This record gives sequence, C-alpha cells and structure tokens, in this order.
Amino acid sequence: MIPVNAYAAQSATSPLAPFNFERRAVGPHDVQVEILYCGVCHSDLHQVRDEWGGSIYPMVPGHEIVGKIVKTGSEVRNFKVGEIAGVGVMVDSCRVCKNCKQDLEQYCVEGMTGTYNAMERDGKTIAQGGYSTQIVVDEKYVLHVSEKLDLKAVAPLLCAGITTYSPLRFASVKPGMKVAIVGLGGLGHMGVKFAVSFGAEVSLLSTSKSKEADAKKLGVHHFILTTDRAEMKKYASYFDVILDTVSANHEYEAYLDLLDLNGRLMVVGLPPEPSKVGAFKLLNNRRSITGSMIGGIKETQEMLDYCAEHNIVADVEMINMQEINEAYERMAKNDVKYRFVIDINSLKS
Amino acid sequence: MIPVNAYAAQSATSPLAPFNFERRAVGPHDVQVEILYCGVCHSDLHQVRDEWGGSIYPMVPGHEIVGKIVKTGSEVRNFKVGEIAGVGVMVDSCRVCKNCKQDLEQYCVEGMTGTYNAMERDGKTIAQGGYSTQIVVDEKYVLHVSEKLDLKAVAPLLCAGITTYSPLRFASVKPGMKVAIVGLGGLGHMGVKFAVSFGAEVSLLSTSKSKEADAKKLGVHHFILTTDRAEMKKYASYFDVILDTVSANHEYEAYLDLLDLNGRLMVVGLPPEPSKVGAFKLLNNRRSITGSMIGGIKETQEMLDYCAEHNIVADVEMINMQEINEAYERMAKNDVKYRFVIDINSLKS
Repeated sequence: MIPVNAYAAQSATSPLAPFNFERRAVGPHDVQVEILYCGVCHSDLHQVRDEWGGSIYPMVPGHEIVGKIVKTGSEVRNFKVGEIAGVGVMVDSCRVCKNCKQDLEQYCVEGMTGTYNAMERDGKTIAQGGYSTQIVVDEKYVLHVSEKLDLKAVAPLLCAGITTYSPLRFASVKPGMKVAIVGLGGLGHMGVKFAVSFGAEVSLLSTSKSKEADAKKLGVHHFILTTDRAEMKKYASYFDVILDTVSANHEYEAYLDLLDLNGRLMVVGLPPEPSKVGAFKLLNNRRSITGSMIGGIKETQEMLDYCAEHNIVADVEMINMQEINEAYERMAKNDVKYRFVIDINSLKS
Repeated sequence: MIPVNAYAAQSATSPLAPFNFERRAVGPHDVQVEILYCGVCHSDLHQVRDEWGGSIYPMVPGHEIVGKIVKTGSEVRNFKVGEIAGVGVMVDSCRVCKNCKQDLEQYCVEGMTGTYNAMERDGKTIAQGGYSTQIVVDEKYVLHVSEKLDLKAVAPLLCAGITTYSPLRFASVKPGMKVAIVGLGGLGHMGVKFAVSFGAEVSLLSTSKSKEADAKKLGVHHFILTTDRAEMKKYASYFDVILDTVSANHEYEAYLDLLDLNGRLMVVGLPPEPSKVGAFKLLNNRRSITGSMIGGIKETQEMLDYCAEHNIVADVEMINMQEINEAYERMAKNDVKYRFVIDINSLKS
C-alpha cells in the first residue's frame, strides 16, 4: 500500500482538514502518479457540502489532476516513469457496455467510477481524489500531458476543459458559426477559449457588466448583458449554439429566444433546481436543449493534444493546500479568475 | 371575388356558426380549391377559444384541407383544374429569408402566414381556413394529393401527418431504433403509423390503460402505462427517440429518464404552461429536448407522396359542418378516434 497525505472533508459541515490514507499498491495495469497540481472545481464544493445528495465521507476531493508518473505496473504499455500525466473526473467504468465501447465511458451504463465521492469497482474502497500527494489509476483512465504547456494551468483542462470542449465539438462548432457562452467562470472561460479557437463568432452572456472587459481580453466578440432587455431582443434568433455553464439556479427560457434555426442550447452546468421550459420557444426555430457531461477518455486526450497544439490552458490562481477553505469561500462568490489550482507541493512539506 | 359559405367563431366565447364571406379572385399564381374535406385539429379549438392569446375574429378555422382544383391562375404551372389538392397550416411566407430558401417556410424569419387566425401578407385581409366551401392559395403553398388514397382520411395528414412525420425524419428514425410516442390522439396515432412504417420498434406511452388495445391494433410493440412506476423503471434509458404529442400541461422530465445515449425527446405538443426540466436528467446520456413545428412545403409533399406509396392515412370520424360544436366538446375530452373530419358537402347544401 502507498501512504498518502491529503485534505479531506469528514462531513458536509466540517472544513477540509489534513487526512492520511493509503492508496492500493500498483497493480499490473496501474500507473502511480505523484501529483503536482490539482484544480479546484465548483463541483468539489457541491459534493463536500453534500448539495447534490449521497456524498461519501471521508472525502478527498479533486478531479483536475496533473502529476509525474513514478511507477508503472508490469503490463502498462502506454506510460513510462517520468512522463507527465493527467487524471480527470473518472478513474474507471465497466468497460464492456455499449457506451464504454464507443469511448463514451462518462455515460457508462453501470455508471462511471468518479475520481472521488464514489465507490471503486471493488465495491469496498472509497475513491479519493487529487487533493493528495499520490494517486494510482488504471492506465486506461490516465491521460498524456504535453510538457510544452504550463502544467499548473493544464490541471483545469481535465474537467473544465473537457466539459466545454466536448459539447462544442458535439454541436460541430466551426468558423462562421455564432456561439454564445453563458457565464464566465472556470467552465465559461474555457468555453470562450475553445469557441474562439474553433473560429466561431463568440459572445458572452452574463448578468454582470463587470465581466465585459475580461471577456473581451479572452477574445469574445460581443458582450451581452442578459438583464438588458433591448440588448437581448437585438440578439433574438441570432445564435447557432449557446453553451450554458452556469450551475446557479436559472431559467433556460431566456436563452432559447436567442437561438436561430436548429439552434442548440448545450447545458453543462448543474443547477440544483429544474428550469422551466415552454414548448412554444422550443418549436420556434426547431430549437434544442442538450445536456453534456465531461467527455470520454479518448476525447479528453484529443482535447489535451489540441490544447498543446494551440497553446490553450486555463487562467489560474495558485493556492497552497492549507488555503483551500478560504478558496472555497471565494469560489462560492465567483471571486476567482478563473480557477484555483492547488500546488500539491504544499502538502508534501 | 369568390363568395364562400363557412362556419366561423365571432369571439372566444361564441360557438361556431354559419358565416359568409368572399375570397380574393384567382390571381396569376393562385389555385382555387373547392374544399371536399377539412380535418378538425385540436389547435382549432385552442385558437377559437383564444387559449394561446391574440386570436383574430371572425375566425374560420381549419388547416387540414383536401379539395378539387376548380380554377388556376394564368401563371400556374404545377396544378391543373380537376386535380386533387391539399392545403395545410400555412398559405404564405416571405419566400426570401434564409429559412424559406431552405424549404423551411414554417420557420420563416418574418413569420409564416397561417391558413387562418392570421393576417395575409397584404396586411389587411384576415386569412380564413378550411371550414368553408372554397379557398384560394398561391400554388407554392398547395400540395398534390394522390387520388389513390381515401381523400377524407388524407385531410389530417396536412397537419397531424406532417407534424409527426417531420420530427421523426429529423431524428433519423429507421429500422433498429426504439421509438416511443406519447399520447394517442390525432397526432399520436399518426406518429405511431409513421414510426412503425419507418421500421422502428414502437412503444406507446400513455396515462390511460384503455389505449392499449387500440395502440396494438396500430402496430405498437409495447404499451407503457406512464403512471406505473415499475413499468417506467423497466424502460429507463431505453429509447432513442420519444415523440411527445401531448398538448395538455405535463412534465417532460418523466420521459427524459427513458432516453438512451444521445436520445431525443421531440416535442410537437403545445401545452399552455412550461414544463420543468432538470439538468441532471439532460446531462445523463447526453439527452436532448427538441421542438418541431409542422414541416415545410417540400417535406409536406414528400410526406404525402410517402403516404400514397405506403397507403397511410389517418383514422377519422366524419361529421357534418353543423355538428362542429358538439365535436369540439368531444375532442376536448379526447373522445375521438382519432380525428374528426368535416364533410364540406354539408356546407354546400
């Protein structure tokens, strides 16, 4: 077994605090990653606080993991000691269902194994995430990371990156298309970067005028204040794709009006409460609302390779592990541009 | 001008009653159709009673029209006197917008001209529908109808037919796919016929066990009682496409659970109240909700030709014009299998 330093929540109401546990010994198909950086996803906070229900404690959060391979199992063929690797939102799945077989393990019929807040497939081990010094993962669920990129800024690609890349690809975003991103947080700023990179005309939809300058810096062509009725009316039936990254409760209907013929509202945020949707707005222009959840391992690798080729990373603010509870408070207020990343070195000392 | 006998509503609260008015004289691009049959669509009732707002009176409803061409304008090339023709939900559109140009006039950027309860494009004439003896329509918005089919049962194809055909085609329904139809009314029974004809495995989702025998007669493979939790659970993540034809208020969420990977809920019903939609159900399996409104003229012709080739018509109950108010009462209670059709002969005598 491998001893690990970590930070964990012991209950929905306790702050994260130091926690020691053991990872499994490296099996024949496993890779052991010494973690360098771990991004702080808004879903970490939701799950630590049991806001989605069913949380499992103790919980070591973290599913935006970048590190260095320090050991490989005897059967591992795709990774070598010393290489940089990534681990994202899942560490396993059934591997044999129709969805796994088409590289969409995130939709595994039996349910994927989350990187944390999940039971491993042995049915008895709690999967623990990246707020820790080491992780052991089957190589099939490990990603190659280019050393060309700023590694601390790569970490958020493992969740925020793939979660926005995948729906934009699914909606076939390409030059000439008009794309809007709703929200400029961890997911939203990656959505903007990808949509701009894919050659679309990109708008940011936000409730906060203060985001305009930042959005423009990221390459956004239009900033649309969603509380401004005249502005919203100007963009009626304008967009081909709207990527909604907001996880606070909100209504989809206001965005539906902005969609052109066959326009798609791609939903990746997870508001706790359902939204109201009227049939008239859907029928008009044959509009769709489509959900999208992270991406499969194959597509995550494709995204990482794309990022290496196009020099795309997240905008990050570094913290030490000991600052995590304060970072959660700031994240809850959207006071971060745009992703906190933990320097896991701070956990080793 | 052409004198016409009709039935009209004078207000949202008055019953339909005899009404005489004049159609425009046949212009160079017009076709004059002597109406033989007109289907009774649930939307006739909604609009007569102003349940969607903005109704225009006097209102002659009816947009499922089959008749015989009695006169053609000097420039008409595609229709001849004596031929059987159909008129559906629209009689005009702008013809030059990007949507009209791709044969999707129902999504005309300026708004299509409805067959009734609309202003014609001259801005001053109220468009009046098929509960009348004659109609004059630009040939671009007139359909060819095969005399091989039972003409009275063809009438509902002009709305109920195309409204279900188009979304099933849009969702690429084909052999091997699992399709469910929600509701077995005028639209639902056509949805079943088309989905069966396209080679799909077809289920009917209904709140009423009494529909089971009828559904099976129409070729449905499975009947699923939506109030039976165990049954609904059995079909979780089962369907590729669900066509929701229900216009009474209801929640989409229960159907979302039944959709498999990339499954689509195609919505054609128009409930007055919005439905609640939760993000988790959309993200799971990358599900979509898509609206669909009738179909363009080109696709409506394709549908009519398909029906002629495959001998598909609606199941109808014939009424005389004088029975329309009673028929509305029965339709409001879903007491019809599955579409009332008015024998317009009853209006001539």
